[in-house]
Amino acid sequence: MVIAFRKDLDLGKGKIAAQVAHAAVACALITEKKERKIFKAWMAEGQRKVVIRVSGLDELYRLKERAEMEGFRTCLITDAGLTQIPPGTVTCLGIGPGQEEEIDRITGEFPLL
Amino acid sequence: MVIAFRKDLDLGKGKIAAQVAHAAVACALITEKKERKIFKAWMAEGQRKVVIRVSGLDELYRLKERAEMEGFRTCLITDAGLTQIPPGTVTCLGIGPGQEEEIDRITGEFPLL
Repeated sequence: MVIAFRKDLDLGKGKIAAQVAHAAVACALITEKKERKIFKAWMAEGQRKVVIRVSGLDELYRLKERAEMEGFRTCLITDAGLTQIPPGTVTCLGIGPGQEEEIDRITGEFPLL
Repeated sequence: MVIAFRKDLDLGKGKIAAQVAHAAVACALITEKKERKIFKAWMAEGQRKVVIRVSGLDELYRLKERAEMEGFRTCLITDAGLTQIPPGTVTCLGIGPGQEEEIDRITGEFPLL
């Protein structure tokens, strides 16, 4: 599983962690329900998660489109905006889980957060 | 759901986010399986997550014990240690999900990460 976070948002590390956790839980639950085999393989391999950064909303949406074209499930996270940022701000994108080498083909070029 | 992170570990924000996400996914999945009603209520309320900080391992274990005595599920996260910290380092603790006011009684005194 890869979670892409917008580096143009000026958020504290606890807030970033909560948003990334939203994406991870959403991706895990939907995959558990819809793609049992992929989910089980991911769990068996230690539910790996990699957090990368994208420059902003444009790059996040381009990555989302590309991941979906390649057949990956994505979960876009929008903050409730109770603290730090306006309500409805898109903060991050969860991709997968899936075969590590296959996700890497899409996300491997991005720097870690 | 509350995730308590050790502030004595010198980790980057992407690494922190991945560890917190491990805790959130672990707590969500076990609660989904074992306490369906609590899980559904948490999902319906927007799967709220709060990330707090504890001073170190001692405080993390004390919090774990207290949360379990109060009837909450906990998930202790140990890093595989491939980067930044030694293998087997305990990084954070997931608590819940559960009734917000009830978890707050245990974790409300801790600062946000």
